[in-house]
Amino acid sequence: MQVDKLKEPLVFHRVLLTVDADDPNSSTRAFQYATTMAHDYQVELCIVSVLEDDDISIFDVMTPGKVDKKEDVVRQAVEDYTTIAEELGVKHVTGLTVGASDVDDVILDKVIPRFKPDLIVCGSDTEDSKHRVPGAVGLRIAKRAQVSVIVVR
Amino acid sequence: MQVDKLKEPLVFHRVLLTVDADDPNSSTRAFQYATTMAHDYQVELCIVSVLEDDDISIFDVMTPGKVDKKEDVVRQAVEDYTTIAEELGVKHVTGLTVGASDVDDVILDKVIPRFKPDLIVCGSDTEDSKHRVPGAVGLRIAKRAQVSVIVVR
Repeated sequence: MQVDKLKEPLVFHRVLLTVDADDPNSSTRAFQYATTMAHDYQVELCIVSVLEDDDISIFDVMTPGKVDKKEDVVRQAVEDYTTIAEELGVKHVTGLTVGASDVDDVILDKVIPRFKPDLIVCGSDTEDSKHRVPGAVGLRIAKRAQVSVIVVR
Repeated sequence: MQVDKLKEPLVFHRVLLTVDADDPNSSTRAFQYATTMAHDYQVELCIVSVLEDDDISIFDVMTPGKVDKKEDVVRQAVEDYTTIAEELGVKHVTGLTVGASDVDDVILDKVIPRFKPDLIVCGSDTEDSKHRVPGAVGLRIAKRAQVSVIVVR
């Protein structure tokens, strides 16, 4: 037991919040937790949403403008979350949208190396979710990421 | 998007910290996070350690006094963590040891209904771990518990 180490406070400094634009209710409590902490400890907050492969059906891809519209919805959601975070007094907040890829892979391979978070905040998919495996995104990131992960329910 | 709800702060009030007496390094950062939060927000903290089935080999069970000794080690570890938490200014801290059962099952079926946490804090097993599936305890709890779970790495 490392007593000296145990007595040091531990505060996360770079928080990555993943939001699901398709299932906003799943992100509500995760957003509340992330902004409360980012405000109280003045940490860097990055809000990211991914436009998933699975969300783009073959029909959608064949309809001109459909994918762009979905991207716009995701981008607008991230912008709204970012604005609210700023209104709540979070000083260092950035929004990020990543298009058309697997959520886990893009978070792990693209977003984490770029933002270098020490905590990832995920919601828990609700019954509104369009994902094929509900509740699994946060858990899969928790399993594969080398940083701390909180699943907020 | 529930804007009014998003603007409410979210603080956890009852934090359950799981520690592994066999693998203290895995719990160090989890302990630091839990006590920092419990101190800063004055939340209730319960520190629990489980004496696992797998830890008691047939040889151990056949040697009189061996199991008792392992239980004592676990009990002492929880007492030490509790004392340090109190020294750090955490006002409401309780220690709990649960003997001889599967970690996930006992946390989910016995500890959660009793303590009613809104956040479970788990460490991430290290290479020192004696568990057969390293790193999996926190993730399995995260998968099965209906409350928020943080895996601190």
